[in-house]
Amino acid sequence: MKILIVGGVAGGMSAATRMRRLDEAAEIIVFERGHYVSFANCGLPYYVGGLIEDRSALLLQTPESLASRFRLDVRIDHEVTGIDRAARTVSVRDTVTGRISTEGYDRLVLAAGATTRSVLPAGSDVPLYTLRTVDDVDRITALLTEAAGPGGTVEVSAVVIGAGFIGLEAVENLVRRGVHVTAVEFAGQVLGPLDPEMAAPVAAVLKAHGVDVRVDTSVRSASAGRVTLSDGTDVAADLIIEATGVLPDTSLAAAAGLRIGESGAIWVDDTQRTSDPLIYAVGDGAEKVDAISGGPTRIAMAGLANRHGRAAADSIADSAGDSLAGAPGVAVAAEPAFGVAIVGVFGTTVAMVGWSERRLLATGRAHRVVHTHPSDHAGYYPGAEPMSVKLLVDAATDAILGAQIVGGHGVDKRIDVIATAMAGGLTASALSRLELAYAPQYGSAKDPINQLGYVADNLAAGTTRSLQWHELPAALAAGETLVDVRTAGEFAAGSIPGAVNVPLDELRDRFGELPAGSLVVHCQVGQRGHTAARLLSQLGREVRNLDGGYKTWAAGAAALAASPRAAVASASSAASVLPVSPAAPALPTERIVA
Amino acid sequence: MKILIVGGVAGGMSAATRMRRLDEAAEIIVFERGHYVSFANCGLPYYVGGLIEDRSALLLQTPESLASRFRLDVRIDHEVTGIDRAARTVSVRDTVTGRISTEGYDRLVLAAGATTRSVLPAGSDVPLYTLRTVDDVDRITALLTEAAGPGGTVEVSAVVIGAGFIGLEAVENLVRRGVHVTAVEFAGQVLGPLDPEMAAPVAAVLKAHGVDVRVDTSVRSASAGRVTLSDGTDVAADLIIEATGVLPDTSLAAAAGLRIGESGAIWVDDTQRTSDPLIYAVGDGAEKVDAISGGPTRIAMAGLANRHGRAAADSIADSAGDSLAGAPGVAVAAEPAFGVAIVGVFGTTVAMVGWSERRLLATGRAHRVVHTHPSDHAGYYPGAEPMSVKLLVDAATDAILGAQIVGGHGVDKRIDVIATAMAGGLTASALSRLELAYAPQYGSAKDPINQLGYVADNLAAGTTRSLQWHELPAALAAGETLVDVRTAGEFAAGSIPGAVNVPLDELRDRFGELPAGSLVVHCQVGQRGHTAARLLSQLGREVRNLDGGYKTWAAGAAALAASPRAAVASASSAASVLPVSPAAPALPTERIVA
Repeated sequence: MKILIVGGVAGGMSAATRMRRLDEAAEIIVFERGHYVSFANCGLPYYVGGLIEDRSALLLQTPESLASRFRLDVRIDHEVTGIDRAARTVSVRDTVTGRISTEGYDRLVLAAGATTRSVLPAGSDVPLYTLRTVDDVDRITALLTEAAGPGGTVEVSAVVIGAGFIGLEAVENLVRRGVHVTAVEFAGQVLGPLDPEMAAPVAAVLKAHGVDVRVDTSVRSASAGRVTLSDGTDVAADLIIEATGVLPDTSLAAAAGLRIGESGAIWVDDTQRTSDPLIYAVGDGAEKVDAISGGPTRIAMAGLANRHGRAAADSIADSAGDSLAGAPGVAVAAEPAFGVAIVGVFGTTVAMVGWSERRLLATGRAHRVVHTHPSDHAGYYPGAEPMSVKLLVDAATDAILGAQIVGGHGVDKRIDVIATAMAGGLTASALSRLELAYAPQYGSAKDPINQLGYVADNLAAGTTRSLQWHELPAALAAGETLVDVRTAGEFAAGSIPGAVNVPLDELRDRFGELPAGSLVVHCQVGQRGHTAARLLSQLGREVRNLDGGYKTWAAGAAALAASPRAAVASASSAASVLPVSPAAPALPTERIVA
Repeated sequence: MKILIVGGVAGGMSAATRMRRLDEAAEIIVFERGHYVSFANCGLPYYVGGLIEDRSALLLQTPESLASRFRLDVRIDHEVTGIDRAARTVSVRDTVTGRISTEGYDRLVLAAGATTRSVLPAGSDVPLYTLRTVDDVDRITALLTEAAGPGGTVEVSAVVIGAGFIGLEAVENLVRRGVHVTAVEFAGQVLGPLDPEMAAPVAAVLKAHGVDVRVDTSVRSASAGRVTLSDGTDVAADLIIEATGVLPDTSLAAAAGLRIGESGAIWVDDTQRTSDPLIYAVGDGAEKVDAISGGPTRIAMAGLANRHGRAAADSIADSAGDSLAGAPGVAVAAEPAFGVAIVGVFGTTVAMVGWSERRLLATGRAHRVVHTHPSDHAGYYPGAEPMSVKLLVDAATDAILGAQIVGGHGVDKRIDVIATAMAGGLTASALSRLELAYAPQYGSAKDPINQLGYVADNLAAGTTRSLQWHELPAALAAGETLVDVRTAGEFAAGSIPGAVNVPLDELRDRFGELPAGSLVVHCQVGQRGHTAARLLSQLGREVRNLDGGYKTWAAGAAALAASPRAAVASASSAASVLPVSPAAPALPTERIVA
């Protein structure tokens, strides 16, 4: 059994090492067009920022270490340029010597990853980089050091194009090095996969750290240390980093006549097999199944690449039958992907899973929304940090469709719990009954997750009715009365235009003051509003609670102030806020996060 | 509808406030025998330690705040002394005036919590406290201040009886105040619910912080500032804190002829109803259903108390039918409880869920065990902290039966993910396919959870075979050869007696050196051992991998060195290591954790 693997980073190397553990006798050759295998690609921005000081920490394995431990034949600087499926061979070019050779295979694994496409107009002469390889960061750090001059005294400026997950990591790490950064985003908000009111606090964090955030903006031209933006303004730029999303690298597969899926990635079955049963594909180049829609999608994530690399090895071992001495590979069908993503930026953590409200609205799927603003742990224990949480729920089945969280400590925990609940098929209401570890430094007796479940349960049971921040203008236009049930002090510190203030604890006594007609109540985060809504509803009033309270409303208002394209409510407008640039058409970066 | 609630802390107050939100018209009276309601009982130790400085932070609600917001009639210093089920009344004693009164009910909720029983012999005159009420901590802090003398210069000593979850919180916070602490534990290890090799690192942490840890020990007598232990030694003690576990307070229920369950707690159905359909019970006094066995159990947890308090209110609203104006209470059947617990001690976090290996062995349930020692996040990113993880898996179904984790950052996240996976019915192997949020500061592309799944999957598929640290002596006695595949340097720094050292990367070349017969391989944490086992097995050798490697073996050896009763392997010995003291018979503190 001779197995060739194209690509030696996450998916390819997972396939190679698992294959060896399943088949000591197999001949396994890994071709990597770059100079490094199995490097820490997710660590690259942090090396630029100096947080990872030791460059060798990025290099997790070498061809030598992989040879001695796994008896792998790893050939760096070798690019596979073609596949002859009939002959079961590939053409390989040694990128150092230029020599072309041919290698036969019994099984072939494609793990070549993704490519980027530049959105920069021709003729730009400002140095341009992506953040994808060790070579990239070597060049970026060399340029930053040179631009800073002797002693590092010269101010260095950079433009980062694309304010998605990778773009924000680039921004943070350039700032960490003292670089002045302009973040240019074609969409109406940073972090396009998030809903606008969840992304707004992230933009505020960026601005608070001196980042010049430009949404609804693209780059018109770049030369002589200046970048001209689509709004005609000029910003300084010693370099440009492009983080506009990635495209699956399907060149080899397409040239070989393998089926390309609807998503534009290489079609695979649930054992990672392409349309040629002897050829597998894994990682960013391979199509995934979206867990929410059941349809094809593209998600570029290291975790999925590793998982699918291992699955491909299992499938090869299985398909090889008894030719593998004692190999008990048990190929398990790949499960659909939820697309879990996280990013840290200046101490704030942003995480998401599944679909956004915008996407649900755009596809017309009936859903419920829950916003909460809990603390990561019990408020009476020192150091509690706030977070904002959004949960998307299927209106018919109560299934969890997605979540977004922005905050400090404990955000990563809650997104992982929700992702696990989704994988386990728990309903949103069932989150109220989850047993989670509680001591006051770690959580609350009613954990943020339980709280989400309580609200979802109340909505599902009809115990409470809510409306979203973007639905408020229509309610007010229809003559509904907005009642702010916070204290007079909270009201004075900032309120929603048109609201009347009747504090919750006075609501029973002052019930008679409320005007006739439908009511909308709100508090700071939604909890007192719920109590008020229950009270008023039992007293015979038609009432809805403004979901997430003043805090969510204010975030939505900030998003709209930054860009009218940040609207989430209108299905027709939803498409327009996808980060689709004329120069890079139809990148579904909504799902391309890493 | 008139609803009386006995007990005004977690479960009782959750029932009361939910009841109000469901029924604005109901008359709701809460009787609390203490002076405080809705206080932060899980914060009490941290107030003793001074970490929570503001005493008022412990008092989350007052009778006044509950009256104005929820129109609750909260009567503190009122003890319910009897129930007349036929007359539907309770007798209430005002503990300040001594006055007895009678109050009628339509529904009654028992949320009186738990009691403690002292294990201290009669005649002891050292001040003795528990850590359960605001009064307790007021008295403890007053005594500590007085004992420390003017300027706090006198060394204060304390004995904490019981080294379970609450006992360790007491220990940590006394040390935080500069108190010298002796921790006295009747069982052979600290944290009895854990398996001994998982508890051993916790004992080491305690000792490193100056705590005098005495296992296999009880208190014989106490007088004149000295405590005499069962081994005859004498230790100084200005005070004693008893944390020997709690018993459900069933006195009212039993006197009223309500059914008491097998576990010793008040029997309830899956809507928290007792054997009298007008009386409900929630919280530490009420029986739970064990999610692993399906049988009755006792678990004293604030989260369950809150959940069940809310469930009781929902059930009352449902049972009242249309007498509640518009109340849409949807009673959901209570789900079995897993018993998730966590404790922080000197910066180390210890968490568990479900059953231990010891308990599985004692009940004869066929299972698999996985030990891993991952880092909380990618090793190439600064600040990664190690943790030790143990997973218990049903041998027949691959269901997750329990987990234990000890470490630094990220322990709370992983126990919550596992608890959620258990609630969602995910198999252990499915953990390998969980999508979890990955950026290098939060996790790994192969998260510790995924790694557990990989090992579990390899065991389930038969790809690898393992043995536990406590099974090693029998294997060696049977003539199996132990091969340490770590490097020569690691071997020299500490090795398992009888092991021969053949580093993994030399194993193919030195294969011929291995003696005939069955082999056991091991590395530091289990991962290289797995690769070695796969290699040797494919080369025709009978081989098992020592689960968790040298690290788990060393922890087990430390546990056995501290106490021969720390053995986990023998079913017959398992009962003897339960923390059952002659003075406090048959406390199943194995499940009584908070």
